[in-house]
Amino acid sequence: MRIHIQNPADDADFAFTPVQWAAAVSRAADPGHLDVSFASDEAGFAAAMREAEVLLTWTRIVKERFPVGALPARAPRLKVIACNSAGLDRLAPFDWLPPEVTLLNNRGTHARKAGEFALMALLMLASHIPHFATAQRAETWEPRFGSVLAGRTVCIVGLGTLGGAAAEQARAFGMRVLGVRTTPAPHPACDEVHATASLDAVLPRAEFLLLACPLTPATRGLIDRRRLGLLPRGAKVVNMARGAVWDQDAVCDALEAGHLAGGVTDVAVPEPLPPGHRLWRTPGLIVVPHVSSDDPATYNDRTLDILLANLAAIRDGRPAPNRVDPARGY
Amino acid sequence: MRIHIQNPADDADFAFTPVQWAAAVSRAADPGHLDVSFASDEAGFAAAMREAEVLLTWTRIVKERFPVGALPARAPRLKVIACNSAGLDRLAPFDWLPPEVTLLNNRGTHARKAGEFALMALLMLASHIPHFATAQRAETWEPRFGSVLAGRTVCIVGLGTLGGAAAEQARAFGMRVLGVRTTPAPHPACDEVHATASLDAVLPRAEFLLLACPLTPATRGLIDRRRLGLLPRGAKVVNMARGAVWDQDAVCDALEAGHLAGGVTDVAVPEPLPPGHRLWRTPGLIVVPHVSSDDPATYNDRTLDILLANLAAIRDGRPAPNRVDPARGY
Repeated sequence: MRIHIQNPADDADFAFTPVQWAAAVSRAADPGHLDVSFASDEAGFAAAMREAEVLLTWTRIVKERFPVGALPARAPRLKVIACNSAGLDRLAPFDWLPPEVTLLNNRGTHARKAGEFALMALLMLASHIPHFATAQRAETWEPRFGSVLAGRTVCIVGLGTLGGAAAEQARAFGMRVLGVRTTPAPHPACDEVHATASLDAVLPRAEFLLLACPLTPATRGLIDRRRLGLLPRGAKVVNMARGAVWDQDAVCDALEAGHLAGGVTDVAVPEPLPPGHRLWRTPGLIVVPHVSSDDPATYNDRTLDILLANLAAIRDGRPAPNRVDPARGY
Repeated sequence: MRIHIQNPADDADFAFTPVQWAAAVSRAADPGHLDVSFASDEAGFAAAMREAEVLLTWTRIVKERFPVGALPARAPRLKVIACNSAGLDRLAPFDWLPPEVTLLNNRGTHARKAGEFALMALLMLASHIPHFATAQRAETWEPRFGSVLAGRTVCIVGLGTLGGAAAEQARAFGMRVLGVRTTPAPHPACDEVHATASLDAVLPRAEFLLLACPLTPATRGLIDRRRLGLLPRGAKVVNMARGAVWDQDAVCDALEAGHLAGGVTDVAVPEPLPPGHRLWRTPGLIVVPHVSSDDPATYNDRTLDILLANLAAIRDGRPAPNRVDPARGY
């Protein structure tokens, strides 16, 4: 199988290397024959696409190189596009994707790091760290005592890799975990799981709200001003999903008014967030530049292992575990 | 036994209540007969001291009310002073304390909260949160990717309640834990334990350094400029001990120079830290106002349980587990 890996020109942290590829192939149970090429420039991409059956690359490269209608001519033999991201919302709508081309994400890569980030954010909120960061900007010593996590209630929206890992950590620290997802199937790390349609009934119980769902037409604006108002006064919020899942201005208003007591967000609209944006200055909010779930030490190895497992499944006629359904968006 | 609890006039979070006292007595295995009084004013204190055999109070109240030589006349029947703190460094030197009066701390109260704070600080440093907080002040989006804790090395100085709880959490997350304490007896959560005299040999291996020792003549200035220089470039530091355990200016210099890559400190010199102090503005440093280990939801219950266990030991002629040795200072 003819595979091309297109790296960006400028990403020292996450560019795939031939050494990483060789190691992944040696780890794979049954890789079959795989013929790989690498490029990081336009000419290398164009040349490789004439033959490639599989492309592994960044969502922004897919977005740039395959405008609507372009793919069949530019990459006539392409059967699989694999992205090194879990959330492919920037590729929606999927009208550029011919139905015979399978789109894969790297769902599963982020579990350990995302779980640690989620736990960190919950501990930071329980210890009022966003409040202290705001006080530090004003150079004021404002003690406020926090409690341990045990016995507190967190609502986690989305129970995929990120939300599931968050739930496991929260549960291990004795929290009561209320999961919310499309269908309310039980989850081993959740005390309760509710359907998204029941979200309004869950929010009043959420001392902590953690967002970890994909951004899709169904989740865009899910946590709007009205739903923020359903949270108990003093609730604390974490966003590891996408900035557009909540109403960012309403979150800022709720923090300024004291309805929310603190927040940690790994995402923003827009990214990168420009100087002068309100989010930087909102009291009790810590802004993290979209790095919560990506551990450079393990990221490419995990991504390649997942890709090879999916290619083996496709080769053998089994369902690819990481196939993205364009109709659902994840 | 005649016990007096002197609350400060102004501490709604931690003032002891008769309800808390009654609950603690009901939990105690063998409390014996205990006759308790409460006050929060000067007159109540003076009256109670004429009869009290045990005083439970704040270190600052002990400091104010018992200058050198004053105790025998003011509290002629006093046998035990119990403080609702673990670190009694503000009472040193102990020349004000008659040798027949036993001084108790509440060591053990802080374990769960301190362990969660220590873990939070390590996770924050691994995820570059102090760097992002500094970038947020400048309103700049500066992604930097972090790794999970597993496989990283932390040196923990002090293995009492705080350091032991920190070691347990670090170990649970797969870190290599190098403990440092007065005598190098093994500790169940440490991969290695070294004597303080060997600190210089341990520091070059410490990707993370966490201070959790009492402040005593032996630890004052322990982490000086020279020892900070022994840490590997890019090391990260946490101080849950006392500000005077490290050379605060040298820490700021090392952060500004990039020798240290981040810090979280729960302590400062002086406290409260005044506006305009250099510590507030040091890049990559998060200043927390001395709240790391105090959970109001459980603090008084734990403190009272520990006091009652110590009083039972004293009554029965056993050693009091929380007795502070004035010669060691802890």
